[in-house]
Amino acid sequence: MEKIFEQTLLYDFYGELLTPHQQSIYEDAVYNDMSLGEIAQERGISRQGVHDLIKRCDKILQDYESKLHLVERFQKAKQKVGEIEALTKLSSDEAFDNDAVLRRMEQIRSLSGELKMEL
Amino acid sequence: MEKIFEQTLLYDFYGELLTPHQQSIYEDAVYNDMSLGEIAQERGISRQGVHDLIKRCDKILQDYESKLHLVERFQKAKQKVGEIEALTKLSSDEAFDNDAVLRRMEQIRSLSGELKMEL
Repeated sequence: MEKIFEQTLLYDFYGELLTPHQQSIYEDAVYNDMSLGEIAQERGISRQGVHDLIKRCDKILQDYESKLHLVERFQKAKQKVGEIEALTKLSSDEAFDNDAVLRRMEQIRSLSGELKMEL
Repeated sequence: MEKIFEQTLLYDFYGELLTPHQQSIYEDAVYNDMSLGEIAQERGISRQGVHDLIKRCDKILQDYESKLHLVERFQKAKQKVGEIEALTKLSSDEAFDNDAVLRRMEQIRSLSGELKMEL
């Protein structure tokens, strides 16, 4: 997974477990795409201090995920929902073929049953 | 929500954040349906001690949920998946009515699109 995408996902799930100070700096780096230098200047702290804080936040968030696996659970569910959505997209030929539509409906039924158990 | 159901859900999501000792006693109470007296005897601690530990675990788990709302997010997603599943259950009359099937397919498309955004 690309680093910034992973950071955003982890922060979306577990960010509330960071302190307000950590949240504020982490958001500047990850969401507002500010450089370490820019954050350091804005906050009046050293570039190294910003770097360490972000690294520490990364570790805290990763530790929560390695215990709880909730990002992973959500991502898997999301993928399955994507498969369901894809099955609903019929070409006009398929839409007139009732058997084909029913076969897709059956696949959706099966996928949604699985998904309900996983959530 | 019924207490034991709520405890089970919260523990399923956040239980890994308790200590092994807390987990073990909480599981006896919530999953194995043991009484405070039984747990106290088994562990050689007081009934009051068991009571306090379980109350403390309840509070820890609820505090995580009040910050992260992940049980709530999952429950909402699960409900929507249930709606999708229900839409796939066609009577034999409906199954032969291609327009009716396509209308349901359209509703599923819309629900799965919403769900994908929420997950």
